[in-house]
Amino acid sequence: MKSPITTIGFDADDTLWHNENLFEDHHSKYCQLLSEYHDAETVEKVLYETEMRNLELFGYGIKGFTLSCIETAIHLTQGEIKSEEIQRIIDHCRHMLSHPVELFDDVEEVLRNLSSKFQLILITKGDLRDQERKIAKSGLAAYFDHAEVVSEKTAESYARVLGRTRVPVKQFVMIGNSLKSDILPVLNLGGHGIHIPYRITWEHERVDSTPHEHDNFYQIESISQLPDLIDIIAVDSII
Amino acid sequence: MKSPITTIGFDADDTLWHNENLFEDHHSKYCQLLSEYHDAETVEKVLYETEMRNLELFGYGIKGFTLSCIETAIHLTQGEIKSEEIQRIIDHCRHMLSHPVELFDDVEEVLRNLSSKFQLILITKGDLRDQERKIAKSGLAAYFDHAEVVSEKTAESYARVLGRTRVPVKQFVMIGNSLKSDILPVLNLGGHGIHIPYRITWEHERVDSTPHEHDNFYQIESISQLPDLIDIIAVDSII
Repeated sequence: MKSPITTIGFDADDTLWHNENLFEDHHSKYCQLLSEYHDAETVEKVLYETEMRNLELFGYGIKGFTLSCIETAIHLTQGEIKSEEIQRIIDHCRHMLSHPVELFDDVEEVLRNLSSKFQLILITKGDLRDQERKIAKSGLAAYFDHAEVVSEKTAESYARVLGRTRVPVKQFVMIGNSLKSDILPVLNLGGHGIHIPYRITWEHERVDSTPHEHDNFYQIESISQLPDLIDIIAVDSII
Repeated sequence: MKSPITTIGFDADDTLWHNENLFEDHHSKYCQLLSEYHDAETVEKVLYETEMRNLELFGYGIKGFTLSCIETAIHLTQGEIKSEEIQRIIDHCRHMLSHPVELFDDVEEVLRNLSSKFQLILITKGDLRDQERKIAKSGLAAYFDHAEVVSEKTAESYARVLGRTRVPVKQFVMIGNSLKSDILPVLNLGGHGIHIPYRITWEHERVDSTPHEHDNFYQIESISQLPDLIDIIAVDSII
């Protein structure tokens, strides 16, 4: 049976544009920087532990990540790291923050198509200023009726966003690359979820299993397949 | 003539609770840390220049400030700063982020009084997660109908917040300690502003003159004077 979908929510990083590849590049340079002290595996492991320890206080985003990188470098080199190397870590933070936004193929066409028939909401987590800057740089802001930056993507935060935009959750479908942040909380609320995996998933976003059995769960390979899937599952709602 | 005020907006940092005193304490420790290299005046001047250079990319908040502190320390010591001293700067960042929220006197009583007669909105700028944490820790969240964290407080951002909460600007009064961020943008939109100066004003928030001549501008010394002033200027709106 088709569902009366009125509103489509989109994650941003690694759903509309590349993001994790910037971190991948940073990790590679960071491991190189510390290579005379430790192998890459150790560096990655200890950096991840530092990030997780700092996550509650620092939150998501490049600035908190950079502070964790600096702390880890001091710890792993027992204080031997040079200040010019710390400066290089900060310079790379600045490089990441000012990086151009690289849209996935077909994103604009898909949004143009869907925005004529549905209310579109952008829901992204992380650093407020950085996310706002990326939304502005993406050139996609005009396709969205609302854009919300949240500090965590939980059932509560989705319920708050849907409440303030007055969207019943049964009429809502969320699109994203993270099962943990984009899909499972929305399924739990009674909404729909369409998962588009990205080639890299940050360890913190990994979940044990994919909810293939769930009636409201769908998975596609790329955003260009989205309009056809929406045609199949949703009763078009001309807004 | 009394105005038909329906909605009162509150700034948070240095309006409802102390904040700038945490930075003051940090500055003092930071100048001490660098005292063998430069006098406090030079340290403050160069730190402020670094902050201003980084503001567009890093935004407001403790994490961006900490990255500016580290950069400035490396620069001012020509790379001689020890990594354990950089670690101390990061430790102090963590100390600031986890600091208890210290409410001003009478804040809760004032909010309880006003929330029975007006719609209250919290509008604060800075780091999303840090601001949300402070709102939660303050115990004041229940008095507010909405809380908004914005990346800059401009006429545009106030117009957006008022638009989404469907409040006509003529029915809105904003309360805060910063003329630049809390008062002038709202006066420019046609709303009302009540300034409550704090004993410290960050250089970036300073403006040349106070708009004493403006019909919709008021100034009081402490938040405990707010209910009486609101009684004088506003037609009570039972919401």
